[in-house]
Amino acid sequence: MPNPAIAAADWGTSHLRVWLLDADGNALAERRSAEGLLAVKPGGFSDVLESHLDAMGAPATLSVIICGMAGSRQGWIEAPYVFVPASVGDILAGAVTAPGARRDVRIIPGIAQRDESAPDVMRGEETQLAGIAELSVGSHLVCMPGTHSKWVETNDGTVSGFGSWLTGELFSLLSRQSILRHSLGESPASVLPDNATFRHWCANALSEGGDIGAHLFRIRASSLLLDLSPADAAAALSGLLIGAEIASAGRRFAGVGGPVTLVASSSLAKLYEAALNMAGREVRIVDGDAVVRAGLFAAARHNGMIGSIGTQA
Amino acid sequence: MPNPAIAAADWGTSHLRVWLLDADGNALAERRSAEGLLAVKPGGFSDVLESHLDAMGAPATLSVIICGMAGSRQGWIEAPYVFVPASVGDILAGAVTAPGARRDVRIIPGIAQRDESAPDVMRGEETQLAGIAELSVGSHLVCMPGTHSKWVETNDGTVSGFGSWLTGELFSLLSRQSILRHSLGESPASVLPDNATFRHWCANALSEGGDIGAHLFRIRASSLLLDLSPADAAAALSGLLIGAEIASAGRRFAGVGGPVTLVASSSLAKLYEAALNMAGREVRIVDGDAVVRAGLFAAARHNGMIGSIGTQA
Repeated sequence: MPNPAIAAADWGTSHLRVWLLDADGNALAERRSAEGLLAVKPGGFSDVLESHLDAMGAPATLSVIICGMAGSRQGWIEAPYVFVPASVGDILAGAVTAPGARRDVRIIPGIAQRDESAPDVMRGEETQLAGIAELSVGSHLVCMPGTHSKWVETNDGTVSGFGSWLTGELFSLLSRQSILRHSLGESPASVLPDNATFRHWCANALSEGGDIGAHLFRIRASSLLLDLSPADAAAALSGLLIGAEIASAGRRFAGVGGPVTLVASSSLAKLYEAALNMAGREVRIVDGDAVVRAGLFAAARHNGMIGSIGTQA
Repeated sequence: MPNPAIAAADWGTSHLRVWLLDADGNALAERRSAEGLLAVKPGGFSDVLESHLDAMGAPATLSVIICGMAGSRQGWIEAPYVFVPASVGDILAGAVTAPGARRDVRIIPGIAQRDESAPDVMRGEETQLAGIAELSVGSHLVCMPGTHSKWVETNDGTVSGFGSWLTGELFSLLSRQSILRHSLGESPASVLPDNATFRHWCANALSEGGDIGAHLFRIRASSLLLDLSPADAAAALSGLLIGAEIASAGRRFAGVGGPVTLVASSSLAKLYEAALNMAGREVRIVDGDAVVRAGLFAAARHNGMIGSIGTQA
């Protein structure tokens, strides 16, 4: 393995991913773990990090740049939010040094929108934004689907506003714990973007501007009265929630035209692409893993953490 | 105790209520129990019913009329849905005799809307409708809030259409199991209808036509950034979900004017009344307990179950 220039970690609530990156930001090694914030004992962050660096053979002096919930009040150390509007440079400059580490470890702050009518926060996704080169010029609308989907408006590299939708969490709660679980069955099937039921329910949600209330119980009733299969019930719920998110976010960010930059991978990217196309939006897909690494690498550079170490040994 | 004319039961998924009614439909005795559908062993319905009748001192020959999920496929016996449009008489005439009972026991069917674009079902609420005398003349919009709120359009005593909203279930899931639980705290405070936070979030949901997606995460962000208290977070979620339901149902049943008949009791009635008033609707509140008893009594009469028994002994 060539010498790594920096170690980088995306440390969220329920997951930890660590990479060793070379001087060009390419991944030399990767570790994935379920040791997210919730699984780490108080004071235990440094030990968990060292165990992964050790397993990857990282040099003892290699610096580490981290993004995600590790920088929240419940994490390793609170990296205070940077308030939007803020440039990517402003955000990266807010990185704080983690206490009690055995090496130079810094954590990138999240961003916050202190707006009485639309307060919002994110931790982790701001680093993905920093990894998307295209955002540095022009106006863009970025969609980052997930447990809590984020939609972000950027102008010449500045985050001007953003919003969060609970789409992934709603799917999980409704499919496993609501009355709809009887329709979806034990393990909801994965949904394909050309599924006619997905498209039908997505179109309904788009045409009703994001109102899911009138539709949810119809999934249960369709099972009872119209023989909707469990697989199609999952497709219906997925189409309904994704369509509603896109209708709602589209209204919120109606002023931002052009293709939507979709930060996602594999199956979720395809579903959102299909739904965005149905809403009349072009899509440019970027891989979520690639841009978080690129953003972490940019942050390390911005904070002067890459240099002599990369050429050592 | 005067002699009862009939025993009546509302037997739902998670509750059982049994009354002894006199020849005018007045309650002589009442039992409430958690022995809903989910708590009754297969074949055990008759025993559970008899234990409550026995505890109330009901004569051995007293007939029983039942509504609710006891008439579903998972219940005592399936009382096949009556399809709408259907008159109250059509619905009550569908009562089926429960097998294996030690006396005359009949179960009122639910109703179903076999409409490809808006399939829906209910079991139990149709009996409340049968207990509201005002519905026999003119057009009415009835709102029955709860775990799965029902909205019903009636014309001269005929149910012409209805819809279900998961409002109560969404409040329960979101307040206890989503990211919002961190904002609402362990036991969400009860919400009062003059709470300014309730009214503010309700107004937002009403003005956005039922789109809750853009708002849910703002409750969490308001705790983090704007010091929203746990009690106000509960008020916000309640206002948001109730406002969204009313906006959505109001659009669905836009053709039905006049006051909304609100079937609810105490605190929930007051919240829905406040929200409906904010939406510009007048409200006529009827008590849910009283109308289910009245509907059960009407069903017993309709099925010829009340007569000589009431004057026996």
